[in-house]
Amino acid sequence: MACTKFEYVKKFESFQSLLPNCYIVIRIDGHSFHRFTSIHNFKKPNDRRALDLANLAAMKVMEEFQDIRIAYGQSDEYSFVFDKNCKIYKRRESKLVSLITSLFTANYVFNWSKYFSAVELQYLPSFDSRAVIYPSLENLRDYMSWRCADCHINNLYNTIFWCLVQDESSPKTVSEAQDILKDTDSGMKNEMLFSKFGINYNNIEEIYKKGTVLYRKNELLTKSDSNISRVKSVIKMDHVDIINDKFWKENPEIFKSA
Amino acid sequence: MACTKFEYVKKFESFQSLLPNCYIVIRIDGHSFHRFTSIHNFKKPNDRRALDLANLAAMKVMEEFQDIRIAYGQSDEYSFVFDKNCKIYKRRESKLVSLITSLFTANYVFNWSKYFSAVELQYLPSFDSRAVIYPSLENLRDYMSWRCADCHINNLYNTIFWCLVQDESSPKTVSEAQDILKDTDSGMKNEMLFSKFGINYNNIEEIYKKGTVLYRKNELLTKSDSNISRVKSVIKMDHVDIINDKFWKENPEIFKSA
Amino acid sequence: MACTKFEYVKKFESFQSLLPNCYIVIRIDGHSFHRFTSIHNFKKPNDRRALDLANLAAMKVMEEFQDIRIAYGQSDEYSFVFDKNCKIYKRRESKLVSLITSLFTANYVFNWSKYFSAVELQYLPSFDSRAVIYPSLENLRDYMSWRCADCHINNLYNTIFWCLVQDESSPKTVSEAQDILKDTDSGMKNEMLFSKFGINYNNIEEIYKKGTVLYRKNELLTKSDSNISRVKSVIKMDHVDIINDKFWKENPEIFKSA
Amino acid sequence: MACTKFEYVKKFESFQSLLPNCYIVIRIDGHSFHRFTSIHNFKKPNDRRALDLANLAAMKVMEEFQDIRIAYGQSDEYSFVFDKNCKIYKRRESKLVSLITSLFTANYVFNWSKYFSAVELQYLPSFDSRAVIYPSLENLRDYMSWRCADCHINNLYNTIFWCLVQDESSPKTVSEAQDILKDTDSGMKNEMLFSKFGINYNNIEEIYKKGTVLYRKNELLTKSDSNISRVKSVIKMDHVDIINDKFWKENPEIFKSA
Repeated sequence: MACTKFEYVKKFESFQSLLPNCYIVIRIDGHSFHRFTSIHNFKKPNDRRALDLANLAAMKVMEEFQDIRIAYGQSDEYSFVFDKNCKIYKRRESKLVSLITSLFTANYVFNWSKYFSAVELQYLPSFDSRAVIYPSLENLRDYMSWRCADCHINNLYNTIFWCLVQDESSPKTVSEAQDILKDTDSGMKNEMLFSKFGINYNNIEEIYKKGTVLYRKNELLTKSDSNISRVKSVIKMDHVDIINDKFWKENPEIFKSA
Repeated sequence: MACTKFEYVKKFESFQSLLPNCYIVIRIDGHSFHRFTSIHNFKKPNDRRALDLANLAAMKVMEEFQDIRIAYGQSDEYSFVFDKNCKIYKRRESKLVSLITSLFTANYVFNWSKYFSAVELQYLPSFDSRAVIYPSLENLRDYMSWRCADCHINNLYNTIFWCLVQDESSPKTVSEAQDILKDTDSGMKNEMLFSKFGINYNNIEEIYKKGTVLYRKNELLTKSDSNISRVKSVIKMDHVDIINDKFWKENPEIFKSA
Repeated sequence: MACTKFEYVKKFESFQSLLPNCYIVIRIDGHSFHRFTSIHNFKKPNDRRALDLANLAAMKVMEEFQDIRIAYGQSDEYSFVFDKNCKIYKRRESKLVSLITSLFTANYVFNWSKYFSAVELQYLPSFDSRAVIYPSLENLRDYMSWRCADCHINNLYNTIFWCLVQDESSPKTVSEAQDILKDTDSGMKNEMLFSKFGINYNNIEEIYKKGTVLYRKNELLTKSDSNISRVKSVIKMDHVDIINDKFWKENPEIFKSA
Repeated sequence: MACTKFEYVKKFESFQSLLPNCYIVIRIDGHSFHRFTSIHNFKKPNDRRALDLANLAAMKVMEEFQDIRIAYGQSDEYSFVFDKNCKIYKRRESKLVSLITSLFTANYVFNWSKYFSAVELQYLPSFDSRAVIYPSLENLRDYMSWRCADCHINNLYNTIFWCLVQDESSPKTVSEAQDILKDTDSGMKNEMLFSKFGINYNNIEEIYKKGTVLYRKNELLTKSDSNISRVKSVIKMDHVDIINDKFWKENPEIFKSA
């Protein structure tokens, strides 16, 4: 057959399978989102529409892949965590990286107008991603804590930064604002926010401070007309601290199937 | 800083860089497109709208990445070829695989209604992809010939298969059609197409028989009101044989920048 | 400098670092040892000299690398296990694989005459090896149990096989012996050994049945002329069951430094 | 069988196959040879015995592996080049890296006393190695030129350096010698060698200036008592420039089997 003499080229393919018994994280990042958010006038420091859109796209990804047990998103990034024992697509790295990114992108583009109805897309958003694997739950939790701490640090910085830049009475330039914030710690930033702008950082919405966690939870469902009930795994969305033990103790079923 | 003690988790990342001086192929495939095309009533054996949509998405990908010198698409797959010396994103595999897939998906979803205006999406299409590298132009051409021969073989088969199944006077079941075609070679299929259904396979549109090639070509542009002309690299779309030497001899600049 | 224009070739090197927080196993295998043992007249089913030589070579490897916490050898193979947190040579796979193999080979060749004084080397032995990583202690113990069970199974088979072949009164050919043993389980082999050849398998030396384990153990050393004592990590050699918990419970310091 | 429940651990192995149609280089380096040469009193700047021993070990490696077409050695390193189409051990990286290193080490240790008869080994030498692949002959030749230029540069430096340090009338310390040579180019070093020490660098033996190349050459063999002749591939050893085209033009069969 005409194909045969060319088929040797398949031998150049090599499939990287991710090590068994390790948690798989696929982290998606917005590609050149600094420019994208600027051209599409995202609100600063946070644009709720963009977070809601990303959360919807992530929810769709989780609905499609049962093996994703928890996901965490903030800013223009989203991390999806597969259970350590999952065997999906033989744990092939390219397959997982490309498919999750594709599905997330499809949902992000398709649902754009639902959240940005008045904003025409000047060009299409795109995302890149990577796979990282973690051998232990401790490593994985540290990964998620790292992203969550990053969310907090950036949000505090961005909140005060944009207050300074958007200050109507005495607006600062970008570099002036950067100079003012240089070498300030969290306490000083909190204090500055409150004394200069009357903002109590604690009162800022949790979604901005903590990011968004999607996770599987077993719920007891009882039909209204019967006393038969059954356990069903549902996907919950929360904006809570995932660094401390509390969240993990309350949700032991994340890494145990229903 | 709160982040610091968690940052060790970055050390678990490992970046696979694709070997220098090799052609990079990123091949995108429709994910479960058998089901997707069935639910969205794609025409058989070929749906021109779907090919046009994929070609548009691929064109957008090439416009974005100058380092892609040629691309080839057929059915629900598309291969993008980066020049062997390109240094884009340090040739990081995950970055290239995810980003190309994301951009292709974004354009496929966004432009769906342009070609399938009457067809509402029941769920969103997604794609997976892989990277393969080839050390020599001969290997790369054999790769492209492999995909092109695959297009021809499948299209001939599908054309006669769907004639049999959709035959109004004497429709065959899927398994009857498969039985009839089993062990037939190209010549027999051509003959059957002509004698039974009055179809001369040679007259079928080239896009179905050859697939689609997108490639960079240098064009001499002359302003109408002057005699100054300059060479500009443009992207051409063709449906031609890319197995034989003719195409490659006529387009020597594919792997040489303008 | 003359070198400069060629130095780009360094960019073709890629270093695979083994995932952090995983146990690293380097398993060395004798290369074509079927032929090597035949030409050098190794005794069947086991040649004590060969085991002692391999054990000595392995001991030397462990003395050189503190990060190797335990090693297990049987037949012509040896597995060396690095602690999961070790950072030796940035955990570079090629470095570890090549260096351990080189050191083992050097000691095997150098000490040959110590054990095979009367046997001249017809050609030199060589070894190949691979790295495997395990995320959990359970996985690692299962790996070691796998090798230890393999030792037992092969030794039982080989013991009865060579009894049949070397039976002075009624020697069997290789294929006759294989036929006799086909489909026999452990119990039947034990029974046959005892009834036909008067051998109680339980009385066979442990080194043949269990293989050899080298491991680090903390010992309390007291100088004879003082009452000052200190803990010192020493390397112990044993021929014991490493499948059950007993060994691991008695040696908790294997994966904890002194 | 007892083994079965542990066998899942095999799935943690992953075999990296080196890309087809690329030249494979396995480069072996002496492990901590600065210390090894010092303790065993290697002569400076070059110890002919050590080079001869390494060359013998390399020759043995080439005799064993027909797929190695050329090898290049200098100082305590040796590079072995497999033909780009060779399929040995499915091009598995660990297998090739470990086996070549093992065979080289075995021969180095075994033949030590042949060249260093009066020198007792205080401890055993060992080697590490890596695999690098090159897609084109140009890349491969640049790799070999890089190692050969490195040989020349180091040898010129070391020759004058050790003249300064071992100068009987006015010996310099190591740091004094380094200071004198800092910022000198090749011409200045040549001049200094001649004017101060009466050494014409051109007259130094080629093995020190060029290193050693082992390569396959087809020779026409004629039996003395007949007029029947046949072509035989033999391994030649030379100390010549492998940077310029001359060597490669004279030896076209290096990458063509006999």
